[in-house]
Amino acid sequence: MKKRKALTIEDLGEFGFIARFSTDFLKNLPPTVLGIGDDCAVLPWKGRKKLLITTDLLVEEVHFLRDKISAADLGHKALAVNLSDIAAMGGRPRWAFLSIAIPTGTPIAWFDDFFRGWKRLGRRTGVHLLGGDTTASKGGLVINVVVAGETDQRYLKYRSAARPGDVVAVTGDLGDSEGGLRLILKKTSPAGLPPDERYLIRRHCRPRPHLEEGRFLARQPEVRAMMDVSDGIDSDLRRIMERSGCGVKIYLENLPLSPALKRCARRLGWNLDEVAAAGGEDYCLLLTVARNDFPALARRFYRRFRRPLAAIGLITDEKNRLRYFRNQLPVILGKSGFDHFKV
Amino acid sequence: MKKRKALTIEDLGEFGFIARFSTDFLKNLPPTVLGIGDDCAVLPWKGRKKLLITTDLLVEEVHFLRDKISAADLGHKALAVNLSDIAAMGGRPRWAFLSIAIPTGTPIAWFDDFFRGWKRLGRRTGVHLLGGDTTASKGGLVINVVVAGETDQRYLKYRSAARPGDVVAVTGDLGDSEGGLRLILKKTSPAGLPPDERYLIRRHCRPRPHLEEGRFLARQPEVRAMMDVSDGIDSDLRRIMERSGCGVKIYLENLPLSPALKRCARRLGWNLDEVAAAGGEDYCLLLTVARNDFPALARRFYRRFRRPLAAIGLITDEKNRLRYFRNQLPVILGKSGFDHFKV
Repeated sequence: MKKRKALTIEDLGEFGFIARFSTDFLKNLPPTVLGIGDDCAVLPWKGRKKLLITTDLLVEEVHFLRDKISAADLGHKALAVNLSDIAAMGGRPRWAFLSIAIPTGTPIAWFDDFFRGWKRLGRRTGVHLLGGDTTASKGGLVINVVVAGETDQRYLKYRSAARPGDVVAVTGDLGDSEGGLRLILKKTSPAGLPPDERYLIRRHCRPRPHLEEGRFLARQPEVRAMMDVSDGIDSDLRRIMERSGCGVKIYLENLPLSPALKRCARRLGWNLDEVAAAGGEDYCLLLTVARNDFPALARRFYRRFRRPLAAIGLITDEKNRLRYFRNQLPVILGKSGFDHFKV
Repeated sequence: MKKRKALTIEDLGEFGFIARFSTDFLKNLPPTVLGIGDDCAVLPWKGRKKLLITTDLLVEEVHFLRDKISAADLGHKALAVNLSDIAAMGGRPRWAFLSIAIPTGTPIAWFDDFFRGWKRLGRRTGVHLLGGDTTASKGGLVINVVVAGETDQRYLKYRSAARPGDVVAVTGDLGDSEGGLRLILKKTSPAGLPPDERYLIRRHCRPRPHLEEGRFLARQPEVRAMMDVSDGIDSDLRRIMERSGCGVKIYLENLPLSPALKRCARRLGWNLDEVAAAGGEDYCLLLTVARNDFPALARRFYRRFRRPLAAIGLITDEKNRLRYFRNQLPVILGKSGFDHFKV
């Protein structure tokens, strides 16, 4: 007789784990509250104003390597990835909470730099650090950040609002962060690197949360679903498909790519489709827009931000089916979006 | 010439670290907000209602050993320690967020138990889990919990409100949790242990947040400062002294001790003063009360909870001076309250 192996976290994967344990917590929620399943939780606040809360956990050797990212960049990034979730709900970030588990022997100078990076972004985005927890760690450094923000109920955009026929769009270039990560893992120091490589590394280490873009888009009624690109569009689109009960076609020739990424990919032999669609941490916004309204919205977006709102695909009625095309022909990607427990 | 050693986290300690980095974040806070330095942050909400937010980070091998505490107990405790902070501000907990970093190979059955313990306490206290983050860990298990609650502005109790002459009181027995921890670290399993030892271990593994007591006491105007006992009164009283600019005298013969703890201490040769004053994680409430009003308040507390509100000392005007007495004579404790980076 074969012995049954006990189910482990690898068997379920990150999203299987969340699905297994979130069901119970979604029951009996008061109707004024949005729980697990979107970029932020939504709580009642003052009248039409809603409170948004999001949290992200960064673990050494999983999310970052301390010899590959400066403390100031990590301070920036730990806050930025949470601000990106607030941006995805069209909100304005207000308050943050920071929990850190610190290995013995960590130099205080490291934290001076960490907080320098954090504070610079906090000041620029109007976010006050209001509390947290400081403990020892027997392993690596662990950083948990919570950000609370506010938005108007009328402007909330959910992952569940995509409809067949919608245009799928993104607010920024895809794949730069994955490119930067690949370079970081090869080289020891960004000093002396050519400008293209420095650009990609900076995009990985200092992501810019699309807060202005998020607030602008949230106010446009023709924008339906919205979320941020954190695990790569290949993974993030699956979240929209699950929540909206739809499918997606992506036209790979339409993915917006920076000239720096294209040049590096050519030189280093990267598969650009995989870098752009399956690479994570771009932290721009992914949205769906009523098809007939897209051209006018894209023009308004361009006038406001001087960058294109890039149409990359269409929502279909093929439930949970994500298909890629290049010049009308189907393409199978060799790599999928990020899951913490699947390789 | 001697080489100057770089300052590390051990040189500052937990509270030195917080002091160094919190100063900047306390500047320029809007007057409607309470930031770093109390049990919870306080945010504006609906009119007189305030939103309380607190967070606690639990790290494997620092806060718990997975072979010494059951998953269900840890699920209970991870939520309970945060509820205790809400209790200390007189609040009602409402929502929780859970971030977990999970080592590969962790059995899903472990999480079934973890969430069983969590949900039982969540149901009893009316707390909904609304979100979080799930990631891999290269080291041990890491759990960060955030709880948001509500209270009325009129009933907020701060650490900074103690005044010379106030009676210092606690709402429960001290030292049981430290006793339980000492037993856990010696034995492999609580099965087959005598009832006293089982009692102490349960007190360590399943702390009861004093939510009802907190809400009752918050409504009494004669209660001045309040906080929860998490690092042991020796450390927690220092927080009240710093924030209120005062000193404390503690009369050790007045510390409330459970019969189980007294019997175990006698049998195992523990120093009861150190266990009760420097041991942490009791999660009862520590408060100061206007002296003349104390007897009447203690009677009302007893009528409501059928347990004494124990007077253990007095607030003095000797700034930051914590003194212990037994039968009028000064006592020096051999051990102080918990600091993550001091041993």
